[in-house]
Amino acid sequence: MDVGLIGLGKMGYNLALNMKEHGHDVTAYDCNEQNVKEAEKDGLTGAYSVEELVSKLKGRKVVWLMVPAGKPVDTLIDDLLPLLNKHDIIIDGGNSHYKDTLRRYEKIKLKGIDFVDVGTSGGIEGARYGACTMIGAQDEVFEYIEPLIKDISVENGYLHTGENGSGHFVKMVHNGIEYGMLEAIGEGFEVLEKSQFNFDFKEIARVWNYGSVIRGWLMQLMEDAFKNDPKLSSIKGIIHSNGEGLWTVQEALELKVSAPVITESLFTRFRSEEDDTFTGKVIAALRNEFGGHDVEKE
Amino acid sequence: MDVGLIGLGKMGYNLALNMKEHGHDVTAYDCNEQNVKEAEKDGLTGAYSVEELVSKLKGRKVVWLMVPAGKPVDTLIDDLLPLLNKHDIIIDGGNSHYKDTLRRYEKIKLKGIDFVDVGTSGGIEGARYGACTMIGAQDEVFEYIEPLIKDISVENGYLHTGENGSGHFVKMVHNGIEYGMLEAIGEGFEVLEKSQFNFDFKEIARVWNYGSVIRGWLMQLMEDAFKNDPKLSSIKGIIHSNGEGLWTVQEALELKVSAPVITESLFTRFRSEEDDTFTGKVIAALRNEFGGHDVEKE
Repeated sequence: MDVGLIGLGKMGYNLALNMKEHGHDVTAYDCNEQNVKEAEKDGLTGAYSVEELVSKLKGRKVVWLMVPAGKPVDTLIDDLLPLLNKHDIIIDGGNSHYKDTLRRYEKIKLKGIDFVDVGTSGGIEGARYGACTMIGAQDEVFEYIEPLIKDISVENGYLHTGENGSGHFVKMVHNGIEYGMLEAIGEGFEVLEKSQFNFDFKEIARVWNYGSVIRGWLMQLMEDAFKNDPKLSSIKGIIHSNGEGLWTVQEALELKVSAPVITESLFTRFRSEEDDTFTGKVIAALRNEFGGHDVEKE
Repeated sequence: MDVGLIGLGKMGYNLALNMKEHGHDVTAYDCNEQNVKEAEKDGLTGAYSVEELVSKLKGRKVVWLMVPAGKPVDTLIDDLLPLLNKHDIIIDGGNSHYKDTLRRYEKIKLKGIDFVDVGTSGGIEGARYGACTMIGAQDEVFEYIEPLIKDISVENGYLHTGENGSGHFVKMVHNGIEYGMLEAIGEGFEVLEKSQFNFDFKEIARVWNYGSVIRGWLMQLMEDAFKNDPKLSSIKGIIHSNGEGLWTVQEALELKVSAPVITESLFTRFRSEEDDTFTGKVIAALRNEFGGHDVEKE
């Protein structure tokens, strides 16, 4: 299949190589010219503008966006719409909010152009060697792109989740669950770390990967991390977030789902990014006011 | 190896069969005579008292306890101590609190008898076909029983976690992590369930098991559960707990580890067991007092 891929970041670049290795003709564009040159060296067809990219595609054109969520997606859709024909397909493989996806779907449909949302999991390794993909699309459009989706996914690792928006919705919830699992693992290892015993964390992650209830890919990655740094002493416990945990919590609030664990995981990340907290100052000030408890001065 | 196994519940019975299949001579005792008769039919040597069990073991005797945590373990240790010789070995393979294990270790050591704590994960299937085991023991004692441990564990699935008590400690934390993971998975699926989309949960669990970040045994079990009951409409969302989540939270409190996710998972279980809550009554009463907000009458 002819595919135009826009966005040669870590995910996009590896996805392009994955597609190429499965026999697809990938034309790649990135706003950074250097990335396009790199892609050409790796045997992909380069394009130095959106126009050039579209002009190089044949038949029912398929353009895969792999760019940061938000404005870049809207801008590229605006660029693409005048260049595409009816029933050409724009695929958003990034981490867009499903409500943006629904809005874009309505807009793109007016032009007779088809739209697909693909939630992609499995990290960089997944993009390169087989991802887990969740696809929101009309049936006919899904069937058209299914051979491509099947090729870039790990065996059994793709699902037509339903109508447009559902792919990004399922990916969002996947990431919310991931937040909670990560925090649970973190808290568990901190209990081990502060305990009276002198544990070998790498070995514990290893044994938990064989036959235990909590075995899984995250625990395997945990073993790798402890292999490289037995006490994680080279890194700080600061955890950034990219939006999907936040969106899951916002969605839970809208749907009146009680989701304390995913919410606490998110709050823990916010807190980890701060050296000090205003909450802390407020509480320290009040304890000082009513009980004369010492405060620590700046 | 000659092993005396006490406690033919779901875990103990399957563990006994697992040992036997690996060529160990298992003599089995349970306070319920019927279970012993069953075990004899399955080719295990039956014993109808602790005395009989011990008398049937040769050489350095190994007695494996697989009974509910708490009093049953203490009672059995009291029964066993007069019957055993120096350097015979008592193994507690149940979910004892590590502090009980430390206390028992000190007591048993006074008699010159060796003690081992084995945390066992992997459920009933694990007990039968290969568990994940975490072993707290003195080096020499561990080495003596290692062939037995290796046989009953899945490949790579056992670890000498350190001194006495550490096996049960690691198992406790394992369960704490499990609480958090389960709650995260639950909350995620509830967001899917309450959403505007009409999802096939079995298919979502399936696709998440291939290539996604959250793939693992729990998600495989989730797929199985949805296969049997697509909307889980046959069961109630009441979640009991057996102590280890509670102990992990208590330990976190003692060690001053902030563990909000494991704690919330535990609180969610407590709440799930109640039809109504006093917290709820208190809040409803106060909202009525200050704002005239309606309350619902009993």
